Amino acid sequence: MGETLGEVGEFGLIARITASLPSSDATLVGPGDDAAVVATPDGRVVATTDVLVEGRHFRLGWSTPYDVGRKAAAQNLADICAMGARPTALLVGLAAPASFLVADAERLAAGLADEASSVGAAVVGGDVVASDTLVLSVTALGSLDGRAPVLRSGARAGDVLVVAGTLGGAAAGLAALRAGRDDLDAVALHRVPRPPYDAGPALALLGATAMVDVSDGLTGDLGHVARASGVGFEIDVALLPADPSVAAAADALGVDPVEWLLGGGEDHALVATLPPGVASPYPVVGRAVAESGIRWLGATTVPPSYDHFG
Amino acid sequence: MGETLGEVGEFGLIARITASLPSSDATLVGPGDDAAVVATPDGRVVATTDVLVEGRHFRLGWSTPYDVGRKAAAQNLADICAMGARPTALLVGLAAPASFLVADAERLAAGLADEASSVGAAVVGGDVVASDTLVLSVTALGSLDGRAPVLRSGARAGDVLVVAGTLGGAAAGLAALRAGRDDLDAVALHRVPRPPYDAGPALALLGATAMVDVSDGLTGDLGHVARASGVGFEIDVALLPADPSVAAAADALGVDPVEWLLGGGEDHALVATLPPGVASPYPVVGRAVAESGIRWLGATTVPPSYDHFG
Repeated sequence: MGETLGEVGEFGLIARITASLPSSDATLVGPGDDAAVVATPDGRVVATTDVLVEGRHFRLGWSTPYDVGRKAAAQNLADICAMGARPTALLVGLAAPASFLVADAERLAAGLADEASSVGAAVVGGDVVASDTLVLSVTALGSLDGRAPVLRSGARAGDVLVVAGTLGGAAAGLAALRAGRDDLDAVALHRVPRPPYDAGPALALLGATAMVDVSDGLTGDLGHVARASGVGFEIDVALLPADPSVAAAADALGVDPVEWLLGGGEDHALVATLPPGVASPYPVVGRAVAESGIRWLGATTVPPSYDHFG
Repeated sequence: MGETLGEVGEFGLIARITASLPSSDATLVGPGDDAAVVATPDGRVVATTDVLVEGRHFRLGWSTPYDVGRKAAAQNLADICAMGARPTALLVGLAAPASFLVADAERLAAGLADEASSVGAAVVGGDVVASDTLVLSVTALGSLDGRAPVLRSGARAGDVLVVAGTLGGAAAGLAALRAGRDDLDAVALHRVPRPPYDAGPALALLGATAMVDVSDGLTGDLGHVARASGVGFEIDVALLPADPSVAAAADALGVDPVEWLLGGGEDHALVATLPPGVASPYPVVGRAVAESGIRWLGATTVPPSYDHFG
């Protein structure tokens, strides 16, 4: 079965993991001290934290430890990008049973490090503790490189609404796994989302007035923007950029894909508002309006947004 | 019994907690967006993360939720100070059962916020998720204010070893709780440690060559410094600054307090090396020597260091 965390201990595991972690230009002091030191060129740091719990946010029967690491990194890196920032560093807390395999912990760390490396960021610190439940907490740091942060509160009536990345794939993949159809392409997007990281800074440079990443479903996340900005939205459902795997999954499972597009979380597409007249390289799906609420043009049903305790 | 997390939901809880959180000068964007933005005046950020698991790092039967919040904040803030830095911000991940009381979550958040406020830092972000096990992950950020970080690797033979803060209190308090003696003063230090936060930047300014906070026990934590610096230490046990509550607990429980002084973690005293000849406002307890290993002058037994999976 291989060595367990209980056998090698906290410090043994940390020594093995940190030995293989790639560094980055922004890493001034990496793992192994009381804290890390990361460069913040413009005198500000963007910071976000997310917690993933086995059995709720992932299942090791459905995803490999490597996939879980990549997914945990991706959802935090996407939050940094949704501010218009560039990710620079991750810190990782792992609470795991003593029976957890060292090899699986190393694969999980490799997934975190690989996803971070894909955007030029590095794992700079962490903590390992014993727990009956496997819990992964990730903190991401990022740099705005002199730009203003793009908040949820800046959308104005008349702005156009654009989506970078695709929608529905992660939800379709989860539905496929629940139906025992792990042969469907969407499953890969449930296991490892593919956020459009570069679109965050790009949309900030284009003058985005508000931005959010789709982590809990488009309905819920756009609702946050609408409330924070004091606007409403009109959205043409036919214009939403569905992942190519969604249609096939909908056919195979006999499901209306609109619920995945509007209610599915964990795709980490970036949704932003741009002033009218800005040429967008990302598809325009609707516009901000003065009246509150979200009107879905062409939708028959609107699923509720996701709540972790709901 | 009061409302539970399952009843108010993730967003309901976050709305209640963030409404009462104090801010700070360094908080440029606080809770409520995809990520926070924190000022980093000298172009660097110090960052550390720790995970606390109910039943292992704390027990809600022995500590109030408010105490747990303060303790979780304290151990992360102490890590920032052990780099010679000043804490600026906390991010908090809470994984809790749906049956967890909203009022307890609010008390926990108040403990985190109060401890952070005591050093001028603020809670700037977080995440709340459902979990069978109560797990708290805290990330602390800090500023070096232009100073070089004080690493574990800089001690040189001939340096003097100083301790800021006191030792043994948290371990004595835990022993008291295990013995059913919650009347002993040391119990308060197990529940809420009192790290000497200001000593971190002060020791950096005095020219500290290495520094570490005592989280896993003096033996283990000094061992990290010894290995990283390639030195050994000679320490006079009689000079170690025991917390005043330690002697009373040792008498009451019939225990030799040396094991708490040398092996007890969670006091978050700061241990540092200073070049010879520097006048120290903190007690000198020994010196760094060329020969590896730690020699305890006057100790009869040396307990092993703490390992979370041991």
